[in-house]
Amino acid sequence: MSDLDKVLAHIDADFDNALDRLFQTVRLKSISTDPAYAAETRACAEWHSKDLETIGFASEVRDTPGHPIVLAKNHEAEGTKVLFYGHYDVQPADPLELWEGDPFEPKIATLPDGSKEIRGRGASDDKGQMMTFIEACRAWKAVTGKLPIPITILLEGEEESGGANLPGFLDAARDELGADVAMICDTNMWDKETPAITTSLRGLCAEEIFIHGADRDLHSGFYGSAAANPNHILARIIADLRDADGRIQIPGFYEGVPEPSPELLAGWEKLDFSEAAFLGEVGLSIPAGEKGRSVLEQTWSRPTCEVNGMHGGYIGDGFKTVIPAVASAKISFRLVFDQDPHKIRAAFREFVKARVPADCRVEFKEFGSGRAVAFEVSAPAFQRTQQGMSDEWGKEAAFVGGGGSIPVTTMIKEKLGMDVVMAGFGLSDDRIHSPNEKYSLTSFHKGIRSWARVLAAL
Amino acid sequence: MSDLDKVLAHIDADFDNALDRLFQTVRLKSISTDPAYAAETRACAEWHSKDLETIGFASEVRDTPGHPIVLAKNHEAEGTKVLFYGHYDVQPADPLELWEGDPFEPKIATLPDGSKEIRGRGASDDKGQMMTFIEACRAWKAVTGKLPIPITILLEGEEESGGANLPGFLDAARDELGADVAMICDTNMWDKETPAITTSLRGLCAEEIFIHGADRDLHSGFYGSAAANPNHILARIIADLRDADGRIQIPGFYEGVPEPSPELLAGWEKLDFSEAAFLGEVGLSIPAGEKGRSVLEQTWSRPTCEVNGMHGGYIGDGFKTVIPAVASAKISFRLVFDQDPHKIRAAFREFVKARVPADCRVEFKEFGSGRAVAFEVSAPAFQRTQQGMSDEWGKEAAFVGGGGSIPVTTMIKEKLGMDVVMAGFGLSDDRIHSPNEKYSLTSFHKGIRSWARVLAAL
Repeated sequence: MSDLDKVLAHIDADFDNALDRLFQTVRLKSISTDPAYAAETRACAEWHSKDLETIGFASEVRDTPGHPIVLAKNHEAEGTKVLFYGHYDVQPADPLELWEGDPFEPKIATLPDGSKEIRGRGASDDKGQMMTFIEACRAWKAVTGKLPIPITILLEGEEESGGANLPGFLDAARDELGADVAMICDTNMWDKETPAITTSLRGLCAEEIFIHGADRDLHSGFYGSAAANPNHILARIIADLRDADGRIQIPGFYEGVPEPSPELLAGWEKLDFSEAAFLGEVGLSIPAGEKGRSVLEQTWSRPTCEVNGMHGGYIGDGFKTVIPAVASAKISFRLVFDQDPHKIRAAFREFVKARVPADCRVEFKEFGSGRAVAFEVSAPAFQRTQQGMSDEWGKEAAFVGGGGSIPVTTMIKEKLGMDVVMAGFGLSDDRIHSPNEKYSLTSFHKGIRSWARVLAAL
Repeated sequence: MSDLDKVLAHIDADFDNALDRLFQTVRLKSISTDPAYAAETRACAEWHSKDLETIGFASEVRDTPGHPIVLAKNHEAEGTKVLFYGHYDVQPADPLELWEGDPFEPKIATLPDGSKEIRGRGASDDKGQMMTFIEACRAWKAVTGKLPIPITILLEGEEESGGANLPGFLDAARDELGADVAMICDTNMWDKETPAITTSLRGLCAEEIFIHGADRDLHSGFYGSAAANPNHILARIIADLRDADGRIQIPGFYEGVPEPSPELLAGWEKLDFSEAAFLGEVGLSIPAGEKGRSVLEQTWSRPTCEVNGMHGGYIGDGFKTVIPAVASAKISFRLVFDQDPHKIRAAFREFVKARVPADCRVEFKEFGSGRAVAFEVSAPAFQRTQQGMSDEWGKEAAFVGGGGSIPVTTMIKEKLGMDVVMAGFGLSDDRIHSPNEKYSLTSFHKGIRSWARVLAAL
């Protein structure tokens, strides 16, 4: 029996204890956004730090101006050095009345189909997910007396409340955090049977624009046609943002946007993804956006431009024949690869200005911005993680893109200069941030076993 | 001394009494929109009816389902028969605290430049204006014992509250109301020194459209580009409504829109109108709309398309990266000459439908519609009215267009089949519908004298 087989057997035998440990941390109300739970949030950090010490980690609870960070190291082994990131804080549980039972008294629920799930706030996000990694470390330590590779674990306590103190911590602790690759367990599987590694996240550039025309609302009977109508100017700007093929027309917008690699495209093609089902679920049937690009390509590897809000003039009941003094729109761009949010913002502003008549003016309001991250899946850490996960689930782990943004991934890449393997066992129906959050018992069990294999493979 | 000279002299001599009569009617709170003033509104109708009897009119207060209508006839004379329309009801006076003095206790105020004005609710709109006509009749009767022409006077009591009962009254009293021409005194002078006859009013077609996409708001990180965004669809529709030269692109839109006649254009060119001043007053400087058309032409004789309101998605503080399920716009068209509002509405709907993707849908909500009216200024009644006014003011009365709509004019033209001469002595700063409404003392005095001359000329 190989070491790995012994470790896997240990995980199975010790599973009830693993569950018990997960329950212990779920019981701690580490609600980072609510100052009333500051002490309990710290208690949770301390619980995890002590727990990591029992696995042979040298662990500390490090203070920050906000909630503490747990930093634990076990570098007894040689080999690929891993920095693992998780967060021990959780979302508030309200509205409490929508929970079946106490959000902080975890329990196992059995569904009609016989499957089981762990219910409680943080059962998935991120206590359940991060404990899959920690339990895998524990099993290796228990069976072989040490971890198979050198590991540093960083557990944040402010992920759900803005993460204001993480950037400073990463800068200050840069030398302590050095590793070959970072790993995060805070993402989803492709589906219930197919594990997934998220290899890219899109960046963001959000901007609000205000088109000012006359210095007051005008009567359209008296001024119609003769006076510039900000609604028309705004509509023209928005319409001009794309051509008939859905391509965004801001000069330089696609700079730094390569075509996805053949490996990625090949992987996506293998996925069991139905555009009809994806759109059908929300009442649509025809993919919008760039012609000739699949929905997956568009949402994972292409930049977007979406008008998230638009307003001008009278929008109450009935009718008022006004020409409004101002019209505004909130517009956001999802960015990919090397697109520079600052360049895009500047180019967008020029694009808008060129379409505002000389006697009108435009005002800009800057909202968030961040670069996209994308990793080369041919790197060894990705290949080995994929191998470990595929072995466990009996199905090849998918390399998937992410349409949204996970700030810590960008931060680790930019500040610490390492790739980040985002591998997780959440499911899209885990109800994270919502009442009755759950984590599939299978996700927890096979998640632990997956990491045990990945650690071996690395 | 001619009869007319005697009448004008009488008007001057009797002016204090004319003012006193105007004050009497202004004191009556004929606020038609507020049921609390129903009795006082009727009292005002009765006051006018009795007053008209003193001038030899056979006058009646006719009940309607709402406020009564005063109908008075004096057909002793031969000649051009005139139907005069005025309205004795007024707007509410609130906010009362913004008035200098009691809105229903009229007074004469002297301005720093020595000019005087009559202050009070209805001083201009329409009690002051309609009394110029009635006082002219009174002077003719006093001096010559009869009116110079047959006159029917109709005074409405619901002009400020929707005018719901006027159409039915016009239909029912069609035979009694027959005349050669109708006259209304409810419009403005061109400027303080130049009287004006409004010869055209634009029609209206107002519509609200709702573009429905997905069956719920979507997260733009997950669905961006792939899912249709109603904001973009709406912006495209609005942008497509005009070409680069400002010409409206709805097929058939300009059907029934002739070029203005040479007489009209020549008259407009003589007007002391500054586009720079007109736009500069509201903070603009560049005429929008159709290229190659003057502001006057655009606002008086060209149809318009204006987006009066537009809304889609999140418009509160901050930012939400949603793709909204719906976006909407309130769009109105001002119509001229023979444009058919029903045809335009239908053509607009087709134009919109053609731009909505097959998996989205559009919903239409119909608001008001009405045809434009325009009169041939070469008709004798227009020429003679112009002559009378020009003689009084020592400056040629201008034939002007009106950008807005006066429903009663359209109604009289359509139901009674007669031309309507809109001649009035209001000024653009009369603050009608606002606190401190006023009517220039000169408007009242020279307005009476103008009508005395017009009645002679007819």
